[in-house]
Amino acid sequence: MAIVTIVGAGMMGSAMSRPARDNGHTVRLVGTPLDREIIDRAREDGFHKTLGRPLPVGEELYQAEELSQALEGADLVIGGVSSFGVDWLAETLLPLLPAGARVLSITKGLRMEADGSLTPFPRYLASLRPDVAFCAVGGPCISFELMDGWDTHVAFCGEDGEAVEACRRLLATGYYHITPSSDVRGVECAVAMKNAYAMGVSLAIGAALRAQGEGSPEKYNPQAALFAQSVREMTSLIALMGGEAGSAAWAAGDLYVTVFGGRTRRLGTLLGSGVPFPEARERLAGVTLESVAITTLVMEALRRRLGEEAGRRFPLLEHLDAILNQGADAAVDWERFV
Amino acid sequence: MAIVTIVGAGMMGSAMSRPARDNGHTVRLVGTPLDREIIDRAREDGFHKTLGRPLPVGEELYQAEELSQALEGADLVIGGVSSFGVDWLAETLLPLLPAGARVLSITKGLRMEADGSLTPFPRYLASLRPDVAFCAVGGPCISFELMDGWDTHVAFCGEDGEAVEACRRLLATGYYHITPSSDVRGVECAVAMKNAYAMGVSLAIGAALRAQGEGSPEKYNPQAALFAQSVREMTSLIALMGGEAGSAAWAAGDLYVTVFGGRTRRLGTLLGSGVPFPEARERLAGVTLESVAITTLVMEALRRRLGEEAGRRFPLLEHLDAILNQGADAAVDWERFV
Repeated sequence: MAIVTIVGAGMMGSAMSRPARDNGHTVRLVGTPLDREIIDRAREDGFHKTLGRPLPVGEELYQAEELSQALEGADLVIGGVSSFGVDWLAETLLPLLPAGARVLSITKGLRMEADGSLTPFPRYLASLRPDVAFCAVGGPCISFELMDGWDTHVAFCGEDGEAVEACRRLLATGYYHITPSSDVRGVECAVAMKNAYAMGVSLAIGAALRAQGEGSPEKYNPQAALFAQSVREMTSLIALMGGEAGSAAWAAGDLYVTVFGGRTRRLGTLLGSGVPFPEARERLAGVTLESVAITTLVMEALRRRLGEEAGRRFPLLEHLDAILNQGADAAVDWERFV
Repeated sequence: MAIVTIVGAGMMGSAMSRPARDNGHTVRLVGTPLDREIIDRAREDGFHKTLGRPLPVGEELYQAEELSQALEGADLVIGGVSSFGVDWLAETLLPLLPAGARVLSITKGLRMEADGSLTPFPRYLASLRPDVAFCAVGGPCISFELMDGWDTHVAFCGEDGEAVEACRRLLATGYYHITPSSDVRGVECAVAMKNAYAMGVSLAIGAALRAQGEGSPEKYNPQAALFAQSVREMTSLIALMGGEAGSAAWAAGDLYVTVFGGRTRRLGTLLGSGVPFPEARERLAGVTLESVAITTLVMEALRRRLGEEAGRRFPLLEHLDAILNQGADAAVDWERFV
């Protein structure tokens, strides 16, 4: 059995404890400075306060300042921070890793370079520590459901096939199904963009609510039209980033789960129903809005790279960016997709 | 303004009357022998009994034996039958069409040739009447929602670009958005297969019900895993049929809408919850089960064409076929997708 150290005690990071523990590993859960209350509470009664479930890690709970202790002898480190925690991870975790360490990252997101090219986080982290093997998780997964042991099928991607396989062996269970992939660009593009496009699909949910009133039945033709357009644009973006066409299926599955997944749907629904973004942001105060950050960043990157062509090739993403950053009306101009 | 004759008064055929009428055309709605009661009822009070909505066609209602009268001077004929009505359409409608006529087909399905190759219906119909231009509709559309004027984005495909454009001009409205496509194989493969795979995604809905009991919350990780696998297999099948990769986005959107669309979801949910197919079929008596026909046909075609490779490349479709035709247990063997 192995030692698995999870750095970041948010919902998804913490949920990774379930398959790891079910495989008999020792699991150490380390909070970031933002997770202090989560660790404090878990130390009291073993309960994860945002997941709303008991954690299966026993006494192996660590605050951020105990990170180096939690890393001692670890066979696998899971990077469990959100995209807003990547800089903290790079500064705090990376220097502590021994050469040859293996890191599996669940962080969604992309970094923009000056020329508008986009770098997946695992590649960025690898550029800082080339002597560490970075892998990453993609594909559809709601943390609650993984924690409850529902069947979940994800991709583990990385350039070091042996490291990917080692991660898979440590974490695959009867309900956590893992396909290895070498397509870091494609899988990570899908992972990052699904939040932006789930907001896009949810615009239709909000628009139908506005037209019919609260509690009215959903309308699937407009949702499906935006879903298809989202898959179209995600597929284009995967190709533009040099990813493999086959990774688009992960994007479609990930989009499906995210449309039903909570905060991104809530934001898109509010926007679609006509609430301006500043007000929507206020109503959702305290909720991590990765969808907003990724939409803004990627649209800016596409403009730098493609100029005016960007909006013609990615009309839904451009529309989302305009709603968020230019106060544009949320009504969809469907003819732009035709 | 033009004359549009819709042959087949089922739900989708009849719903096509809405955009046609909104564009000011005369719309003639012709029932097949199976639609006799629909036409009778509509003649009484203008109401479509299965759509549950008034029809906007006025007096222009025809029974099957009045077909030739309904075709007089028609600028466009919409083939509005289900896949089970294609032979009737071929025998009854095709001989009545003048040379140069334009037909837009909404029929979902594929025909298997002896060697296991699959032919989309528009191509099959064109082989019977090469002097007629056949186009077809693909993409996500629930008939009720089109009838109610909700935004809907579809593809019109055909080999005769001028005919496709003519159809588009006649039917595009402010809510019915139409993208022209020359990829008949890709679009029609998506159209046909979405019923099979929507049944596949719904297996997870049934399995969660069985595990948790009726009325319990849905579980999206397993649904999304099957959704991604479905997109993967539909993309492969489009490629195998010689369709374009870009048409996979239509498949994804069409799958999304079909998962929420009614009868296919009901069948998949029953099967997933452990009800054997013969019993499920009985419970759904009277419901058109295109999903069953297409799953059986395409799996047989793939076996003829690919031999044992068929199941390895299309494991979800093979599983569905085994449930329907060999009484196999509905529990998904997830490792086959890894």
